[in-house]
Amino acid sequence: MKKEITLGIDMGGTNTAFGFIDKDGNYLAEGNIPTSKHEDINDYLKELHLEIENVLDTIRDQVTLVGIGIGAPCGNYLKGTIEHASNLKWDGVIPFCDLIKEYYPNLPVFLTNDANAATIGEMIYGGAKGMKDFIMITLGTGVGSGFVSNGQLIYGHDGFAGEFGHIVVAPNGRQCGCGLHGCLETYVSATGVMRSAYKMMAKYNYPSELRAIPFYDMTSKIICDAALKGDLIAINTFKYTAKILGEALANIITITSPEAIFLTGGLSKAGDLLFGPTKEYLEMNVLKMFSNKVQLLPSQLTKNVAVYGAAALAWNEINKK
Amino acid sequence: MKKEITLGIDMGGTNTAFGFIDKDGNYLAEGNIPTSKHEDINDYLKELHLEIENVLDTIRDQVTLVGIGIGAPCGNYLKGTIEHASNLKWDGVIPFCDLIKEYYPNLPVFLTNDANAATIGEMIYGGAKGMKDFIMITLGTGVGSGFVSNGQLIYGHDGFAGEFGHIVVAPNGRQCGCGLHGCLETYVSATGVMRSAYKMMAKYNYPSELRAIPFYDMTSKIICDAALKGDLIAINTFKYTAKILGEALANIITITSPEAIFLTGGLSKAGDLLFGPTKEYLEMNVLKMFSNKVQLLPSQLTKNVAVYGAAALAWNEINKK
Repeated sequence: MKKEITLGIDMGGTNTAFGFIDKDGNYLAEGNIPTSKHEDINDYLKELHLEIENVLDTIRDQVTLVGIGIGAPCGNYLKGTIEHASNLKWDGVIPFCDLIKEYYPNLPVFLTNDANAATIGEMIYGGAKGMKDFIMITLGTGVGSGFVSNGQLIYGHDGFAGEFGHIVVAPNGRQCGCGLHGCLETYVSATGVMRSAYKMMAKYNYPSELRAIPFYDMTSKIICDAALKGDLIAINTFKYTAKILGEALANIITITSPEAIFLTGGLSKAGDLLFGPTKEYLEMNVLKMFSNKVQLLPSQLTKNVAVYGAAALAWNEINKK
Repeated sequence: MKKEITLGIDMGGTNTAFGFIDKDGNYLAEGNIPTSKHEDINDYLKELHLEIENVLDTIRDQVTLVGIGIGAPCGNYLKGTIEHASNLKWDGVIPFCDLIKEYYPNLPVFLTNDANAATIGEMIYGGAKGMKDFIMITLGTGVGSGFVSNGQLIYGHDGFAGEFGHIVVAPNGRQCGCGLHGCLETYVSATGVMRSAYKMMAKYNYPSELRAIPFYDMTSKIICDAALKGDLIAINTFKYTAKILGEALANIITITSPEAIFLTGGLSKAGDLLFGPTKEYLEMNVLKMFSNKVQLLPSQLTKNVAVYGAAALAWNEINKK
């Protein structure tokens, strides 16, 4: 008997990766194409379809493709659209599910934003297996999130729920790309940590190798490495980051009371530098009834998270039926 | 044929009210007993049972009782318990559903906290009928809340989700009864508004009738009445309250993207004084993708909200089966 698989597509601003994954999480084949090469989305879709079929050819005799899941920036689950994604070349509201269906008219196609896809990936294949209430936070260039309650992802009334990166944690705080000030992601993303390093240079007198690095050349990894070597500016940067993240997590625990909070994305690789103090500040600020109840964990999906997530989205939807 | 009804019990610190309500929201009979009279919970239960049966006798020939719903402070839906409720005489964890079942062994009995019950009441009988994603906020002595996503109340992993009153809106802010500082309810509850009136007296020089009233004698209604007469201390108090509430609502919209937010409880009676500026600050602080999407509405249940809510809880659970 042929093995049932879904196709997971992770569309990023630069690159689109995809993979074929079975129900048990076996990663059977993969491929990718550049996203930003094509001015016309139809040219992009043609190339994507061609590459998908090429890769599928290598396993076609062993598998049956039963669905397609897509994770995309500004993806709307309810409408199957990508809406006003600033890091894509194509403007406006793109009916992406419908466009994919033109190539695969007989398959169910599902789409959501990248953070939601990662959340479902964690639920189906990762550390949240069996959990009915958890939160996933992606700490990358920005901050994304997915909230699962009663075993279901919270999409909200318009399909855009879970924008934890844009809760305002400091009224009149840092300028955010979204137009607001003081959004969480201006503090606790990879970019936020960089900004905080310069704040710490301003605040403290400690000598630091970071003082030799111009803003444009800084990365969160440089700060992380410096902190591990005992650099006090870098250590205070992580402490400051953890304080703001811990306080924000304490607040959302109060709302959804999850079993666990998973952190993923580039900044989460800082490991104990981030997890230790974040957990500490979280516990310090959370309502007593939630004290020491919520686990703070790294994502257990370490490779191809977004592709896994997109494939998991398809599996999750197919299983609902 | 006899009409099916549920019994809704609203247990408050002082008084316990109950009512018999049918599926369509008809309120058939009601009663109440004091909560705080009895040192022993078993004496309380005996009196409650007796009074319930007395009231039921007046309609017994027309009805069939099919379930019992209870709203109680610190009520845990998952366990059917009341846990460490500081405004009740009985300490510790009370297995309240089980105690009620001793009197009604053949009926399904459900329990949740008062704010969650009010939320389900709004969903079944009130303005949230047909909504799958909404939030209910009770602005009373404290602040309670219920979050509905995907048509289901969010109880969280431990049954205690929805404590919006204890998100920290001002780190190192006002002392809260819960042990934390800066909780939302220290600003936007009836008590919070009182505290803010004194802050405004300290901040501004405006003459005000409120300056003649000692803290112990102040009520949110006095402030509301003064504001309606143009008192500048009172008006600024409501503006300050609305700013903090609007900012907090903007943050939770970003998380759950509701269709509407309902306000209820004593302070919500301030009407336009509160709703107008709250909506303004909400829109000013919310992520653009949610701008002008979320309705801010008064609860449409104006009488016996908590009893309606408790009865609705029972109907909602029975309908699930």
